[in-house]
Amino acid sequence: MADVVSRLAEFAVQPRANFPQAMEQASIAGLLDTLAVTIAGSADADFRLLAQSIDVSPVSCRSALYSGPDTALLLGFASHVLDYDDVSMLCVCHPSAPIISALLAFCTSALATQPITGTSFLNAYCVGTEVMVRTGQALGFRHYQLGFHPTSTLGALGAAAAVCAALALSPRQCAAALGIAASMSGGLKKNFGSPVKPLHVGLAAASGLRAAQMALAGLGASPGPFEEGGFIHAFSGGTTDRWPEQLALGKPFAIMEPGFEAKRYPCCYLLHKTIEAVLEIQSDAGLQAPTWRRAEVRLPAGSLEALIHPYPTTGLAGKFSAPYVVAAGLLDGSIGLSSFKDSAVLRSDVQDRLHDVTVLEVGTAGDAGDDIGCAPVDVEVFWPGGGSSARRITASPGSSQDPMTRIQQREKWIDCLRAGRPGLSRAEADRQFGLGLGFVAMADVRPWLRELLPVDQQQSQPQKEAFP
Amino acid sequence: MADVVSRLAEFAVQPRANFPQAMEQASIAGLLDTLAVTIAGSADADFRLLAQSIDVSPVSCRSALYSGPDTALLLGFASHVLDYDDVSMLCVCHPSAPIISALLAFCTSALATQPITGTSFLNAYCVGTEVMVRTGQALGFRHYQLGFHPTSTLGALGAAAAVCAALALSPRQCAAALGIAASMSGGLKKNFGSPVKPLHVGLAAASGLRAAQMALAGLGASPGPFEEGGFIHAFSGGTTDRWPEQLALGKPFAIMEPGFEAKRYPCCYLLHKTIEAVLEIQSDAGLQAPTWRRAEVRLPAGSLEALIHPYPTTGLAGKFSAPYVVAAGLLDGSIGLSSFKDSAVLRSDVQDRLHDVTVLEVGTAGDAGDDIGCAPVDVEVFWPGGGSSARRITASPGSSQDPMTRIQQREKWIDCLRAGRPGLSRAEADRQFGLGLGFVAMADVRPWLRELLPVDQQQSQPQKEAFP
Repeated sequence: MADVVSRLAEFAVQPRANFPQAMEQASIAGLLDTLAVTIAGSADADFRLLAQSIDVSPVSCRSALYSGPDTALLLGFASHVLDYDDVSMLCVCHPSAPIISALLAFCTSALATQPITGTSFLNAYCVGTEVMVRTGQALGFRHYQLGFHPTSTLGALGAAAAVCAALALSPRQCAAALGIAASMSGGLKKNFGSPVKPLHVGLAAASGLRAAQMALAGLGASPGPFEEGGFIHAFSGGTTDRWPEQLALGKPFAIMEPGFEAKRYPCCYLLHKTIEAVLEIQSDAGLQAPTWRRAEVRLPAGSLEALIHPYPTTGLAGKFSAPYVVAAGLLDGSIGLSSFKDSAVLRSDVQDRLHDVTVLEVGTAGDAGDDIGCAPVDVEVFWPGGGSSARRITASPGSSQDPMTRIQQREKWIDCLRAGRPGLSRAEADRQFGLGLGFVAMADVRPWLRELLPVDQQQSQPQKEAFP
Repeated sequence: MADVVSRLAEFAVQPRANFPQAMEQASIAGLLDTLAVTIAGSADADFRLLAQSIDVSPVSCRSALYSGPDTALLLGFASHVLDYDDVSMLCVCHPSAPIISALLAFCTSALATQPITGTSFLNAYCVGTEVMVRTGQALGFRHYQLGFHPTSTLGALGAAAAVCAALALSPRQCAAALGIAASMSGGLKKNFGSPVKPLHVGLAAASGLRAAQMALAGLGASPGPFEEGGFIHAFSGGTTDRWPEQLALGKPFAIMEPGFEAKRYPCCYLLHKTIEAVLEIQSDAGLQAPTWRRAEVRLPAGSLEALIHPYPTTGLAGKFSAPYVVAAGLLDGSIGLSSFKDSAVLRSDVQDRLHDVTVLEVGTAGDAGDDIGCAPVDVEVFWPGGGSSARRITASPGSSQDPMTRIQQREKWIDCLRAGRPGLSRAEADRQFGLGLGFVAMADVRPWLRELLPVDQQQSQPQKEAFP
């Protein structure tokens, strides 16, 4: 039995002639979802602060451009700043954001000297998320409990594997990149609720890309980075030192089984079932909806640890407020990016109704995030005439039990692109969506990506400074 | 009692009018020692691979130059690649390398818009190493046992504090930088013995500098990064969650009490007492020395876990070989950088004698690295005529019990500078040492540093790319 890093590396860079069509579809959906939220996220004020903090060198001859890792840093930040990117509960992480960010930065960098086909990009994406999620499963839940942010710690490994696959490095080079990335992993859950949370995704993407670059240049790491006192030992707090033998790679890929959970709404994942119930009730009630008298929401125990803003006065706080999404959903009939602008939350016809929503926890809290994920949510809205409408939602919208339809994917795409680029017409956003659906057939994905992305890079080969 | 990050930040950026003269001397010695090994390290082959892996943007208008964080990455790597930089056994780390590397990169970057006095540089250096070492003490030895490399994990925090001090940021900004750096910390001991070990120092220095840049731009972190499930919890494997109340900052500074341990010889620290003993014996024996018959070395138990190459055939292996340093020391009468070239190790009059050295462990292995550090080493050399010479060395050369003399510091400096810059004359290296001794009185340290350092940076203000 080969050591863990050799198995991961062999898996990551093996050529794949047959790319199953179902995986093609899942990965295109994941790519477009991540691209959309990344473009939307690039309009965020903190994104601009981050860009300002990067010292771009050198100067004065033409507009300054970002290096590959800095592009990965920026795109990674943008991909997660809205907390609107997909989720995998297998190891409580956001799988697509760091991997796609690293691949996008790679594809638009000087490192990509050859055309990159849609198939090779999607293969690298599936490989990267697989290495990320399976390593998270090997670490176990203790990793999360200790305070590490799996999207960050594991993202660096997945991003390294993805870029190695896209570069078609040798297994030996890929093993070196994974060993280097293992020493770049970090990121603390303690920074949730601050701009450092999306920064984690940027750091992971940049680290993965950089580790692959270093391995390509010939830098080597120690053998066995995932065994005997290595990555798994350190990041599980010494709980385990080994990769579980039964944990296979790509049989099936995590993106296929159980699949990633896309976010239908740009807010806390624990609000998704509530919103779904409210919008169904609103849709049935029609003109009656705005006249609601009061509402009750029943959430699984533990939910309110995240939903900490019953009476929000900012858009960010609204993302963690059950009363807000009930009141806004019944008034507007939809929940989207514009629902979480400060001005939307501050509307008097919403603020006046927040106290009319009762939120209760039911049942007993489980040990893992997935327990909350599987439990049902009940919403009941009471009408002025005396009747009421009730809905129970068990499957989270966007999960494989209730996947997003093509129409919903398209609406999210258009909503996001127009948020990221205020001047963009709906028709143009729609046209880009159509192009994206044809991604797998692109002979070279770089021109389309360069057109879409909010960060420019150098387009020609860099020169190196001589050292004394 | 303020929270930990506030205390660290207040400490880091507080103005210090009085800089005690003894600390001035200790910090100049540490600075010159680190500068010397950094310049020597820049001649390393892996340093060039690392430089090649960095994509420098943009291109074609003039020679490409490195950004601030990339400069920190390169200088950090160079500072540690020879394993010749100083040590603090308080938390088993190399304190000066990451801090000085970050400060050097800062000083020579576009971020340093104002003159930087020698005093402010040295203050920042002392602040950075203090934050680093004390946080390591707060983590406890479990951190090292789990497999983390403290120089790397803690170096990012120390480097952030140092750059914040040099930039004279506010306590609030410094707290943000420390919170950001806490999420950038990583690095695994498993990568010892590979180029990823010095890379850790580069990553830590780059992360610290970047965290300070981000905080300066206005990015914020969560409150309390070092408490309640934060950095200390995660990196101690859940052993502790709090900063020990008795652990003060700067009372005294760690650089003063117990002080850092400079390396006299460019090899494993556990060989230092052996080398000292051999060179004393050689010096006394004079012309008789090369005729030695056999030798015995008695090391404290546990030493041979590191000294794993009894019969080395490369320079790198020679750094971990007791028989080699005995044979080479008796033949050459000195141990320096040239002793660890492949050609030096392969000399037949050394190779033929390796089996004439007996190495024994005595006593019982302790729990911590410091136990080995405090135990004596015995060397006995037997002469052809029948007599023998013996030495027992208890204080490690370079430690505060046997500090390097000014003459030894100067010899190490000259040796290092000439290794890093083969064309440099001894007289010019010596002249630079004299300038370095006057560092504290420099009104602006940047011109001298730019002349010395092996990495160029942009010298004017960067422009930023516009975002859509």
